[in-house]
Amino acid sequence: MASIRVALGERSYSIEVGAGLIDDPAVYAPHLAGHRAALVTNTVIGPIYGDRVASALRKAGVEVIEVVLPDGEEHKTWPTLNLVFNALLAAHCDRQTTIVALGGGVVGDVAGFAAAVYQRGVPFIQVPTSLLAQVDSSVGGKTAINHPLGKNMVGAFHQPQVVIADVITLETLPMRELRAGLAEVIKHGIIRDPVFFAWIEAHIDRLLARDVDALTHAVVRSCQIKAEVVAADERESGLRAILNFGHTFGHAIESGLGYGQWVHGEAVAAGMVMAADLSARAGMLPKAESERIRSLIARAGLPVAGPASLAPDRYLDLMAVDKKAARGNIRFILLDKPGSAVLRGDLPEAMVRQTLAACSAA
Amino acid sequence: MASIRVALGERSYSIEVGAGLIDDPAVYAPHLAGHRAALVTNTVIGPIYGDRVASALRKAGVEVIEVVLPDGEEHKTWPTLNLVFNALLAAHCDRQTTIVALGGGVVGDVAGFAAAVYQRGVPFIQVPTSLLAQVDSSVGGKTAINHPLGKNMVGAFHQPQVVIADVITLETLPMRELRAGLAEVIKHGIIRDPVFFAWIEAHIDRLLARDVDALTHAVVRSCQIKAEVVAADERESGLRAILNFGHTFGHAIESGLGYGQWVHGEAVAAGMVMAADLSARAGMLPKAESERIRSLIARAGLPVAGPASLAPDRYLDLMAVDKKAARGNIRFILLDKPGSAVLRGDLPEAMVRQTLAACSAA
Repeated sequence: MASIRVALGERSYSIEVGAGLIDDPAVYAPHLAGHRAALVTNTVIGPIYGDRVASALRKAGVEVIEVVLPDGEEHKTWPTLNLVFNALLAAHCDRQTTIVALGGGVVGDVAGFAAAVYQRGVPFIQVPTSLLAQVDSSVGGKTAINHPLGKNMVGAFHQPQVVIADVITLETLPMRELRAGLAEVIKHGIIRDPVFFAWIEAHIDRLLARDVDALTHAVVRSCQIKAEVVAADERESGLRAILNFGHTFGHAIESGLGYGQWVHGEAVAAGMVMAADLSARAGMLPKAESERIRSLIARAGLPVAGPASLAPDRYLDLMAVDKKAARGNIRFILLDKPGSAVLRGDLPEAMVRQTLAACSAA
Repeated sequence: MASIRVALGERSYSIEVGAGLIDDPAVYAPHLAGHRAALVTNTVIGPIYGDRVASALRKAGVEVIEVVLPDGEEHKTWPTLNLVFNALLAAHCDRQTTIVALGGGVVGDVAGFAAAVYQRGVPFIQVPTSLLAQVDSSVGGKTAINHPLGKNMVGAFHQPQVVIADVITLETLPMRELRAGLAEVIKHGIIRDPVFFAWIEAHIDRLLARDVDALTHAVVRSCQIKAEVVAADERESGLRAILNFGHTFGHAIESGLGYGQWVHGEAVAAGMVMAADLSARAGMLPKAESERIRSLIARAGLPVAGPASLAPDRYLDLMAVDKKAARGNIRFILLDKPGSAVLRGDLPEAMVRQTLAACSAA
């Protein structure tokens, strides 16, 4: 088991990565605040791992209330959030109740946001079961629901007590979700660690074959990188924005197509190709490096172009409301060399349009 | 103008109390983060003071987006909160937008919670226009909406940049609301300051006559007391609970009758009489002091008994889900002497029933 510390002062916590952790009461016990835990999962993950986690929690000494949410990004909404509140209030749960989020990014975001605002905040534990959630969404304390006018527009920063990332749960992950998670793994190499990027290039086939050792290394190194960045900038006022590499374009794709058409990692994959292309066009990154990124994303089986149905004007409209846009300017995270990302808000619209034209499906 | 500091480290802010503050751009200017402000008010307060505040904000250099909410506790709900999100997103407001809450406690709670969670948190300014909001709800960073199963069950701690309490706005306050605000003023004397309690006894008629000097003193002293308590315990893990004197019973009354039948201050007034009665029954407080509290509340024109329609069993059910209840015990804030409140979770149910019988309308 590897343990990665996220250093955030009194809100510090650790990410435990290993195989078989979800069944071990000792992994949960130090992080349970009161006598009750609300296990929040969904209709896909609940039947597979729900009983195992509930059993471990009971052995750790708490009463367990189970809340099963509908599955899918389209349910990352207020009515789903309210299902958690309904269950907690019906069971008279007080502020000492620990919420345990068991599932992928949507469960983590909804359950985490529920924990942030139920009775103005209760403790919670993340048990991410998708690669995307293990390497990205469960780390850093971002929680949110979507709004019809934008993704993640309503949410909170609420740090968990602990993240328990069990790579065994990746065995049951659909292939499409595995690839989507690899998009964020690749992103961590691109923005922060050329050695890790090269390691992914060398191990992409083993990762796709779900080799446990390869996946464990990918999760550990990704979490280390994300933890470093989050520790330096918890509230995303500066450095943390680099984690959004590929996301300004990616969010526009997700939002423009309607949530659920492309999964997040796919949209981010195409968005990273666009951001690398834009970096090269702006003269910041050698063309060969942008091609290397494109090539690895293609080998991971991820999209390297935006959908044909999304016009450049639609991208520009959608990116204008993106939450990383300050005072109306569209800001992009670009690369000034491999392993180094910077925030740029001064790219000419014509250049952005060239990238959109070059990186969209015919 | 009096300025009261709420000492909360990097979240510290001041409460400005005076006459005519809402028209002064210089009062707002230091606290506006970006180029835009969202002025959130309601259908009652907006027509009276909305233009004046919007004008001052524009003179302070920001563009103003106005959001008008329906009036009343029954609208302290998700759909109302969503009106704020809709307006902010339609106007492409980013994280540098300052939310300005102009109105009573409901507007402050809803707009404050919107500020806590819009794009995971934006700055906000409280401009309370009711006595209740000036002396209580606008101070301390508690924000929330109600849930059908409980009041303030979904919310956040989110401190404002500044609170601007203009006593001029109390001139247009309905008499019932003025009395309700006095309930919290009286509470501050009861739990923390016998000298202030005696001052209120001596000035209750001037307060009811809306004497500006008397109201200013009442607001300033109340805010000082609340600020001291909040500074010592921002997240309500200990001392802050004393501010809930009368509230365990009071919330049961509000919830049991259905929100909006009794206003918050009325329910708290009857709840304080009950809490004082229970303190006397438990042998903690001389009967004469409990009578003094009852007498002042009566002179303020506030209820000194719970509604006849609410049975003791219903109180006990409702109080069990109260958010101050930890691990299933009902906790009360009681008095161990005038000016000193303590948290007690060990009162026998029979004694609580005696208080309910003694303090309910026939």
